[in-house]
Amino acid sequence: MYAERRVRTSLAELAKLVGGSVSGDPSISVSGVAPLDRAGADHISFLANPKYQGKLAGCKAAAVIVHPSLGGSVEVPLLLADNPYLAFAKILTYFEVLPHVGQGVMAGAHVHHDATVGEDVTISPGCVVCAGAKIGRGTCLQPNVVVGTDSVVGEDCLLHANVTVREKCLIGNRVIIQPGAVVGADGFGFAPDGETYYKIPQAGCVIIEDDVEIGACSCIDRGTLGETRICRGVKIDNLVQVAHNVVVGEDTILVSQTGIAGSTVIGRHCTFGGQAAATGHVKVGDNVTLAARGGISNNVEANQSLAGAPAMPHREWLKATMTMQHLPEMRRELSKLRKKVEELQRKLLEEKE
Amino acid sequence: MYAERRVRTSLAELAKLVGGSVSGDPSISVSGVAPLDRAGADHISFLANPKYQGKLAGCKAAAVIVHPSLGGSVEVPLLLADNPYLAFAKILTYFEVLPHVGQGVMAGAHVHHDATVGEDVTISPGCVVCAGAKIGRGTCLQPNVVVGTDSVVGEDCLLHANVTVREKCLIGNRVIIQPGAVVGADGFGFAPDGETYYKIPQAGCVIIEDDVEIGACSCIDRGTLGETRICRGVKIDNLVQVAHNVVVGEDTILVSQTGIAGSTVIGRHCTFGGQAAATGHVKVGDNVTLAARGGISNNVEANQSLAGAPAMPHREWLKATMTMQHLPEMRRELSKLRKKVEELQRKLLEEKE
Amino acid sequence: MYAERRVRTSLAELAKLVGGSVSGDPSISVSGVAPLDRAGADHISFLANPKYQGKLAGCKAAAVIVHPSLGGSVEVPLLLADNPYLAFAKILTYFEVLPHVGQGVMAGAHVHHDATVGEDVTISPGCVVCAGAKIGRGTCLQPNVVVGTDSVVGEDCLLHANVTVREKCLIGNRVIIQPGAVVGADGFGFAPDGETYYKIPQAGCVIIEDDVEIGACSCIDRGTLGETRICRGVKIDNLVQVAHNVVVGEDTILVSQTGIAGSTVIGRHCTFGGQAAATGHVKVGDNVTLAARGGISNNVEANQSLAGAPAMPHREWLKATMTMQHLPEMRRELSKLRKKVEELQRKLLEEKE
Repeated sequence: MYAERRVRTSLAELAKLVGGSVSGDPSISVSGVAPLDRAGADHISFLANPKYQGKLAGCKAAAVIVHPSLGGSVEVPLLLADNPYLAFAKILTYFEVLPHVGQGVMAGAHVHHDATVGEDVTISPGCVVCAGAKIGRGTCLQPNVVVGTDSVVGEDCLLHANVTVREKCLIGNRVIIQPGAVVGADGFGFAPDGETYYKIPQAGCVIIEDDVEIGACSCIDRGTLGETRICRGVKIDNLVQVAHNVVVGEDTILVSQTGIAGSTVIGRHCTFGGQAAATGHVKVGDNVTLAARGGISNNVEANQSLAGAPAMPHREWLKATMTMQHLPEMRRELSKLRKKVEELQRKLLEEKE
Repeated sequence: MYAERRVRTSLAELAKLVGGSVSGDPSISVSGVAPLDRAGADHISFLANPKYQGKLAGCKAAAVIVHPSLGGSVEVPLLLADNPYLAFAKILTYFEVLPHVGQGVMAGAHVHHDATVGEDVTISPGCVVCAGAKIGRGTCLQPNVVVGTDSVVGEDCLLHANVTVREKCLIGNRVIIQPGAVVGADGFGFAPDGETYYKIPQAGCVIIEDDVEIGACSCIDRGTLGETRICRGVKIDNLVQVAHNVVVGEDTILVSQTGIAGSTVIGRHCTFGGQAAATGHVKVGDNVTLAARGGISNNVEANQSLAGAPAMPHREWLKATMTMQHLPEMRRELSKLRKKVEELQRKLLEEKE
Repeated sequence: MYAERRVRTSLAELAKLVGGSVSGDPSISVSGVAPLDRAGADHISFLANPKYQGKLAGCKAAAVIVHPSLGGSVEVPLLLADNPYLAFAKILTYFEVLPHVGQGVMAGAHVHHDATVGEDVTISPGCVVCAGAKIGRGTCLQPNVVVGTDSVVGEDCLLHANVTVREKCLIGNRVIIQPGAVVGADGFGFAPDGETYYKIPQAGCVIIEDDVEIGACSCIDRGTLGETRICRGVKIDNLVQVAHNVVVGEDTILVSQTGIAGSTVIGRHCTFGGQAAATGHVKVGDNVTLAARGGISNNVEANQSLAGAPAMPHREWLKATMTMQHLPEMRRELSKLRKKVEELQRKLLEEKE
């Protein structure tokens, strides 16, 4: 399903690829990427954080990607890049990510005769593409993916094995969905009818914009009316819950096991740490960072770093948390102080008499 | 797989459907449901909460579902219903939920010759129904559903794509299971054998009673001996864990990412908020509400509203939580007070001398 | 897919099986296992905890597994075993777990012509085994399992329905994976590029050693470079997240909904309770127990029992938690004390004058 691997290139070519420069022999040959402590004579390695510079000493790599400020300080050939981590990611992509070569509709795939399939797609064995669905040019469905009635998957997407996209959902271009994720399940809505609950049909859909990634076994529910929207560039980790009618703003990151309750709107370029949460019907401004396990239960202004549940400024939370373990000692001390003060009061009274 | 959509009806018919009455022109024509701010001239809308009455002003809907107390206060035609939210749910069902039309065993489905399949079912491509399994009349299995050996799925159920029901489980009537959910995986039981663990076979099953809904990627484990039981009318959201031999009482709600540990018994008509939990081997009474992130670790009496972990009455928890952020300031103050009291003691002593 | 059930044996045979002894009639016949309160005349039951000895009174079982210290104290025939819980597990296995009988590659399974399949395997309908993959002798793939390109599954494994193993992963022998679990999804790694994120290819793999069990809908991500490793004997419950390049040491237990962030190394024989977590890039020593909801955010020495987030010694956490609900009362008291002390200071001053 993938083309032959690229094999070998020069340090100069890699520098060109990432817009960097070379310190040392530009013709040195590289065939892969490895971490500093495992790199051999054919590998390029990287130093994302200058404080680990000491690790360069025993390094056997062909070359190392570093920030220009470290240029000249070591003997090993260097690829100087302003953003070494980004350069590393691009070079790793060069060596490891091979262009998708469409295999077409493979034996054992079930594509409804009313579905539309673009050029250069791969529809693997066990996939089911329902009536009215569209699969865009260059998109790859790994085995056992299900795309529901009238759903649209854009171009150059990669849906991994056992992914479910239910009916009437829209997925943009270059979207990656990891195995077992579910797009478009019913939102959790019920009207109380005495002691029992009456199901509110979830008649809306999910819209996933371009360049989104969704993690394994994550769930993006469809809207009750209207849509749940995951905006351009959002990255969602594994086992994350996004409820009905939520909007997640562009370039926002939701780390593993986070949950966002219904109708909440999250701004652009936010980060929610692992196992974090936001309650329903709140607004979170742009550039908000919420630490792991944080819980947002009210509207939140933009450009803040929060932690704790209910969420508070990160520094306040750190202080409060540090004090937590002193609580029993504080309680004992309070009790002692009370007694001392009472004694003092008594003595003062006695003296007066 | 579904019948043609209904198109259009009168306000009077809708009022009859939900047992309500009309204020305004009963012959007005309606073809769908939309929220107040998006409704057009063909839509019926709804006002579940009277405090948002102001929103009725600019509303362009054909009619609005409201509580009778709001009748006559606005110009738009009204459907008066004692429970407007329930009326909305029923009318949305009328427009959006189409009766299932059985497609039979479709090409690409694998039904074992010893399995039994009722009338008017749909067994979609990629489904696997194992030996001895029974699929009841009117039930729909979406693509790639697996029903294990000797399991029984009742009538008029809807199992969405990629659902797994393992062997020997019983599922009642009108049960809905969202994509990727797992019914009947092994409970997590191991006997320590020195430093290693010996697997305890999970020889029991899962029983899911009528009218239950289970969310995407939720997991209901089978009993070790005997059953795990999800009682009539229970609604379980996405990514919820229900461990072996748990009983969840009728009409109880478990919101997303909640976890219930082994052998715990939860009463009727409880609500567990998101990311909540109950430890193993405890009993929770009827009508208990546990706030999001709450954690129950002991038996709990009926008819209570709890929050926090360990769970405490919701009001106490609110107060304790509000105080949390004052902790560092409290600690500083304690330290100051201690010094002052010591000084006072010293002075008193000095005076006496 | 499984052999006929064994039916009936003697108490003496069962004692031999578990290395125990019999008190009472060794020829008594047993055909299954049941809990004390449900056991009939054909069942063997068990008493794992001596403090429930009273339950033996009304017991109708053919025999009961107990610790030798309870021998002779009751009339019912006994199987005396030093580790009654382990003996119960082994006898339950004897009655309930039937040897796998390979069905070969079944109709409706898709095995690539470049894949290798051992003897006595079962590859069920809907399974997809990709090019270069190897399935070891005696292994059973339940329906709709996907094994990716060049992945290796060892001998006598059981992969339940809808499991995904992505490409280039290694799975040892006797590994059990519950339905819907995902092995080898991309780790969550992105390099910031201005406001957007550039995907870091996850070029590594997952190695799962022998005798591991992985729960339903749990996710074990592949390494960025190098591997994520689940060591021999690890037991992972449902809905657990294990991020890229994590190492989980031998015989460690991760209970449901726990999350382990990237590059963290967990020691041998640890236990993480439900909904617990460890942050990225930390080391946890051997034999560490972390209570449910605990959160580890720093390196942790071996042989400790921790709780809370940030994690602290379990006893300290218990005290701090118990004090939590007194917080509002403490704050009021502090305020009162402050006033009293100020009054005392004033009085002392007055007296001096």
